[in-house]
Amino acid sequence: MTDKLLNERELSFQLYEMLDTEALLERPRYAEHDRAVFDATLETARAIAVEYLAPHNQKADANEPTFDGEKVSLIPETKAAWDALAAAGFHAAHHDAEDGGLQLPEVVLRACMAYFNAANIATAAYSFLTIGSANLVKSFASETLRQRYLPSMLDGRYSGTMALTEPGQGSALGDIRTTARPAADGTYRVFGQKMFISGGDHELTDNIVHMVLARIDGAPAGVKGISLFLVPKFVVNEDGSLGARNDVALAGLLHKFGYRNTTSTVLSFGEKDGALGYLVGEANKGLSYMFQMMNEARIGVALGASALAYQSYIHALDYARERPQGRLPGSKDPLAPQVRIVEHADVRRMLLQQKAYAEGSLSLCLYGSQLFEDAHTAPEQADRENAAELLDLLIPMIKSYPSKYGVIASDIGIQVLGGSGYIREYPLEQFYRDNRLNPIHEGTEGIHGLDLLGRKVGQRGGKGYQLFLAEVRASLTQAAADSACAPMAAALADALGILDKVTAELQAQVAADANLGLSNATAYLDLFGRVVVGWIWLRQALVANHALNAGANGSEADFYQGKLHAARYFMDWELAGLEAQARLLGAGNRLSYDMQDNWF
Amino acid sequence: MTDKLLNERELSFQLYEMLDTEALLERPRYAEHDRAVFDATLETARAIAVEYLAPHNQKADANEPTFDGEKVSLIPETKAAWDALAAAGFHAAHHDAEDGGLQLPEVVLRACMAYFNAANIATAAYSFLTIGSANLVKSFASETLRQRYLPSMLDGRYSGTMALTEPGQGSALGDIRTTARPAADGTYRVFGQKMFISGGDHELTDNIVHMVLARIDGAPAGVKGISLFLVPKFVVNEDGSLGARNDVALAGLLHKFGYRNTTSTVLSFGEKDGALGYLVGEANKGLSYMFQMMNEARIGVALGASALAYQSYIHALDYARERPQGRLPGSKDPLAPQVRIVEHADVRRMLLQQKAYAEGSLSLCLYGSQLFEDAHTAPEQADRENAAELLDLLIPMIKSYPSKYGVIASDIGIQVLGGSGYIREYPLEQFYRDNRLNPIHEGTEGIHGLDLLGRKVGQRGGKGYQLFLAEVRASLTQAAADSACAPMAAALADALGILDKVTAELQAQVAADANLGLSNATAYLDLFGRVVVGWIWLRQALVANHALNAGANGSEADFYQGKLHAARYFMDWELAGLEAQARLLGAGNRLSYDMQDNWF
Repeated sequence: MTDKLLNERELSFQLYEMLDTEALLERPRYAEHDRAVFDATLETARAIAVEYLAPHNQKADANEPTFDGEKVSLIPETKAAWDALAAAGFHAAHHDAEDGGLQLPEVVLRACMAYFNAANIATAAYSFLTIGSANLVKSFASETLRQRYLPSMLDGRYSGTMALTEPGQGSALGDIRTTARPAADGTYRVFGQKMFISGGDHELTDNIVHMVLARIDGAPAGVKGISLFLVPKFVVNEDGSLGARNDVALAGLLHKFGYRNTTSTVLSFGEKDGALGYLVGEANKGLSYMFQMMNEARIGVALGASALAYQSYIHALDYARERPQGRLPGSKDPLAPQVRIVEHADVRRMLLQQKAYAEGSLSLCLYGSQLFEDAHTAPEQADRENAAELLDLLIPMIKSYPSKYGVIASDIGIQVLGGSGYIREYPLEQFYRDNRLNPIHEGTEGIHGLDLLGRKVGQRGGKGYQLFLAEVRASLTQAAADSACAPMAAALADALGILDKVTAELQAQVAADANLGLSNATAYLDLFGRVVVGWIWLRQALVANHALNAGANGSEADFYQGKLHAARYFMDWELAGLEAQARLLGAGNRLSYDMQDNWF
Repeated sequence: MTDKLLNERELSFQLYEMLDTEALLERPRYAEHDRAVFDATLETARAIAVEYLAPHNQKADANEPTFDGEKVSLIPETKAAWDALAAAGFHAAHHDAEDGGLQLPEVVLRACMAYFNAANIATAAYSFLTIGSANLVKSFASETLRQRYLPSMLDGRYSGTMALTEPGQGSALGDIRTTARPAADGTYRVFGQKMFISGGDHELTDNIVHMVLARIDGAPAGVKGISLFLVPKFVVNEDGSLGARNDVALAGLLHKFGYRNTTSTVLSFGEKDGALGYLVGEANKGLSYMFQMMNEARIGVALGASALAYQSYIHALDYARERPQGRLPGSKDPLAPQVRIVEHADVRRMLLQQKAYAEGSLSLCLYGSQLFEDAHTAPEQADRENAAELLDLLIPMIKSYPSKYGVIASDIGIQVLGGSGYIREYPLEQFYRDNRLNPIHEGTEGIHGLDLLGRKVGQRGGKGYQLFLAEVRASLTQAAADSACAPMAAALADALGILDKVTAELQAQVAADANLGLSNATAYLDLFGRVVVGWIWLRQALVANHALNAGANGSEADFYQGKLHAARYFMDWELAGLEAQARLLGAGNRLSYDMQDNWF
């Protein structure tokens, strides 16, 4: 198992050939690092994944968290893994050294996270949730709150949650009903119920810091009246010691399809006299704070989807290379030896498809992380702004493509193994179940479709969208001069033209009638995502062909040939049908819109 | 739950409007029935599904079969359901009255089975397996064997299995290694291991009759040396009493992703001195006997996939109609009430897609059953032959389309419910898990692709294929005269032309190089399946529009409008991209074929 996490060659290709991660060393923030530090950190991450995460992935799935009415129990390996991740500094990895962090570039940290996700996404989630909530505390909480809570979140004593969703509101955050009543001392008393709160209760840590969206009494309706509160499980005294149990109760655990070792909770705030909460930042700005963290969280979800897709791919590949079965169609001799199933073209088709989705998704997520990095640490302000703008445009695709196609890659993994894929004696079905959460949380596909077409493509005069077109065109120009890549560039250029045309058509439709114009937004999101990943594959092909021309040989040549072949596959098969779909969208297909409830 | 099985209106539409099931009453075999008998049988099936099957569907999933080394335990509701199905005569429903059967037409029996599958596919599977193995006994066993075993299989005292698969052979039946050694008394001693044998052990019945493929000592290699044996769990004495335990041992249970209440077993034959087996029919003809039963079994699998897709659809629809969340994109008032999610166009898109897959699949399966019926009971020999020929051609699509797209419908069901779809507190994830077996058993998609392109389209001079073209063209002609259906007919005519062209191109490629030519057979199967189901939808639209023109109103008009709208959806969205895929296939795309193992 331990040798089937992520291909190290693949990660180094993404970090050092596709992205120029070494160039980050020239930036002041990373001046004291060198490539050896990055590689050692990756090696530490891999070692923790192998030693602490992977071994209990199946066990935790088969022995999910339980709640006896008093406390939540997890299998003990969970705590050991949490401690290992904390001790190695991964909860604080991107924080500054002076705050106890590793001051690690985002893209290197994400590559480490890919190992954790591949090994055991449900256990690793406690860390990711804590990292996310600590970011909120760091960015928006008062100095007092920060001093009291942040160090314990960075060193592993406390964990964190993001408490947004409520039973009656789901994706519509504007309808949050949890309330916060001001107390005389400037604190608040929080009342309400939250649902699907991951990591909402457990015994891994001394304390749990809930970052809660709630509405201060009398606040405006809708999204403009939502504030962010820090609500601890145990109140922390001024001296840093733990005080009273706060009025936050676990109403129950939900029992998930996959991702089981992450508790999914229903939390009741204020069943007694109100949960003590501290306002974070200004009143009524909670949603905007949350959204500033959202891009990171969404890349994180997509990276998990990519890692699980990759797991499904390499486990299927391993099986296909070892399992003998049948003969080629042209073979008529029943006494001929069986061939390994990787020799059947149809199995190679499935594996190619998995490779295209898994590696395309992983590459896209790391590229997104690089944009995130550039948005914060690129030396020139214009570069920072452009990176932020481009990332903001691409987030719906970065979140949705790996989530959707990653699940398909996991589904294909089951099919490659056939009957063995269908039984729990093999891990493929768990990869599928774990991965299936990703198109749902951090914004469903439908939500991202609306975000993309209803907001992102047109925002700030379409600046992000134009930046994207320019980036792709630059790659097309480069590829046109490369004989191996030119045919792929031609296919992608067609796809880009189709995307650009349909974007304009849909924007006009939205302007004319938002409800009708947005009715096929999810299909547009899918189309856009395929073009983006087509571009990612063209770039991988360019790098690969350059390396081949430079004389790569042996297993290195094989690696690059695989990249080229998968890129060709993507252009031929994954972009096929794009034009027909765009035609439906461009013509304003009304079928979903016109369907009546009583016709179902 | 009980009101969410299958829509009775939908079943009556399929049986009495799409198919002319009443016309069967004119055939001698059914002369003593009338429509009231059919309807009463359907009502009995529904009642059993509601009373005996549905209530323990989730419980059985959560409490899967266990094996303590001595015996297998199932939750007791399983036995009660088995008894109810047997007592109502469903194990013998299509057998002649003189054999204790109900002499029921295939298509009516299948509609009953759809209820059982929808309610609890894993419990119902014991009956389906028994029906299939009893068919083998009836059709091919000697009179002595028939008398000794068949009555007990028809009345529920014995159950049956189909024991084909072995650990080392999977889809390649020619590599079966289980051996049968002739004994002096004309019986055989069977030795070997079988895997993934559904219903291979349990305590539901006094006895289990295994229909086992094995190779007689000295038989030819490959598929031409395989014989069929009846191997009982307990030997039955001449007087019909149960004799000794046979040398068939349960080596272990496999733990499936879904479909859990059906035991999946590893069986060891002949661990001691050999399992007593009786040759069924002639030596070395086992595989041909099995294949004569295969069409029925494959329709059965597809029907299960359709029923589960339908379950996913109506549970998602029910949720979408009740769950309020968010507002339409054009709404700017945060105080406006939330809308039910069915009012979001994107949710309607998902439900339309589910409807198109579920109802298209169900209709296709019942049409296939009608062909099966005609092949056996049509008054004219030419009609019988044509029905058999057409069914034989269509079987790969009838098996594969509902299996593939049914799983997608189940997946969409999870997405419609969002977070609720992902937790086991709702049944959507179980529908998905149960359904996921269907693209694997009774021939994977890959196997059916090879069967279609490598054999079916060209067999007997392409007679089945030509019959199919003629049938579709007849519908196109009919639709051209119907103003509502003419645009759909135009779309389908294009698709049929594309299919016909690519079929010829691929046949030429296969003739030139079988391995290369068949390398994209699965993609061709998918394309063919979409055209077939497009045709099914055109026919549903024709019936629906005819009824609307005849003055249907109220909920009847809604029902027919839904059919028309789903048909339009299918032509627009599900046939989009067909041309681009056909272009790749027609050009002999080599990407899967050329991919090298060491490039992965």
